[in-house]
Amino acid sequence: MIPDAPSSGYTVWFTGLSGAGKTTVSRLVAAELARSGVHVEVLDGDVVRTHLSKGLGFSKEDRDTNIERIGWVASRLARAGTAVVVAAISPYEASRRRARELTEAFAPFLEVHVRASVEECARRDPKGLYARALAGELADFTGVSAPYEEPLTPELMLDTELDEPEASAGRVIKMLGARGLFR
Amino acid sequence: MIPDAPSSGYTVWFTGLSGAGKTTVSRLVAAELARSGVHVEVLDGDVVRTHLSKGLGFSKEDRDTNIERIGWVASRLARAGTAVVVAAISPYEASRRRARELTEAFAPFLEVHVRASVEECARRDPKGLYARALAGELADFTGVSAPYEEPLTPELMLDTELDEPEASAGRVIKMLGARGLFR
Repeated sequence: MIPDAPSSGYTVWFTGLSGAGKTTVSRLVAAELARSGVHVEVLDGDVVRTHLSKGLGFSKEDRDTNIERIGWVASRLARAGTAVVVAAISPYEASRRRARELTEAFAPFLEVHVRASVEECARRDPKGLYARALAGELADFTGVSAPYEEPLTPELMLDTELDEPEASAGRVIKMLGARGLFR
Repeated sequence: MIPDAPSSGYTVWFTGLSGAGKTTVSRLVAAELARSGVHVEVLDGDVVRTHLSKGLGFSKEDRDTNIERIGWVASRLARAGTAVVVAAISPYEASRRRARELTEAFAPFLEVHVRASVEECARRDPKGLYARALAGELADFTGVSAPYEEPLTPELMLDTELDEPEASAGRVIKMLGARGLFR
């Protein structure tokens, strides 16, 4: 009943610790894509929570539900021909794999691990959350009081301790180009 | 940061009682759109609940949350150029209005009231739910133990007691044509 999808859609999924640089890099990538006329939709974990996942917390089950929802929406948008840019901690490998499967039924899925050490993220601490987590005030805080399962086979790994955001975004664009998804 | 949307997207929002014919008519419409090469996404309330709203019940608050989510996803897909076909009881005027506002920021929104009397829907009772609701076994059942606020200014009203599903679907297609959204 649904016709073949427009062929240009895909999902770029940024995963990593809070403070690793997912939002910053993903916005630079989205801006670059948009400048070239690509239709982009950014699904940022923090933003999406207000629309899709109000009431969910940060337990493993609630995180899995949140990622399942983002993955489902991303898959629908990618099928519609959108370049979907997701930025979400998404700490569990199984959840990311399910999100991948949902998109790959229709379109490419590129997992980008935005990597910085817990120590570095705690030093940046843009939201003051590491300080609270390290003081024992936040349960279920990824990297401190909850696990982060590193991606096993990401399409790309970014090191935001080594590279500036602009250089990291450039690597993502380069990867998309190498895969025929951007020119 | 996000470029102008592809201009062809819109949301057709079917609202009405359980058993009024929303799913049947919306599928016929989606099939007709798809046959003409339009990229269609169907967001059926019952189906979407498994992806977006697991855990939500049928209280007013939970229904509002469910409709808010469907409305948000529909708006994103419409912005991406998709013909979005929503079939959801969506009994509250305020929720439907919010869904409309989300889409209309980017694309047309067409509300279609799929109308049949409670008596007729109870006679059809495809899921056996009216029998249970009328026996007092189901709280919050729209039309029996919970309200259905009729649309005040729908773009189209279908009478599924008068017309067969194919004729109702034809009226929707005709309306889309008259608005320059289908040819």
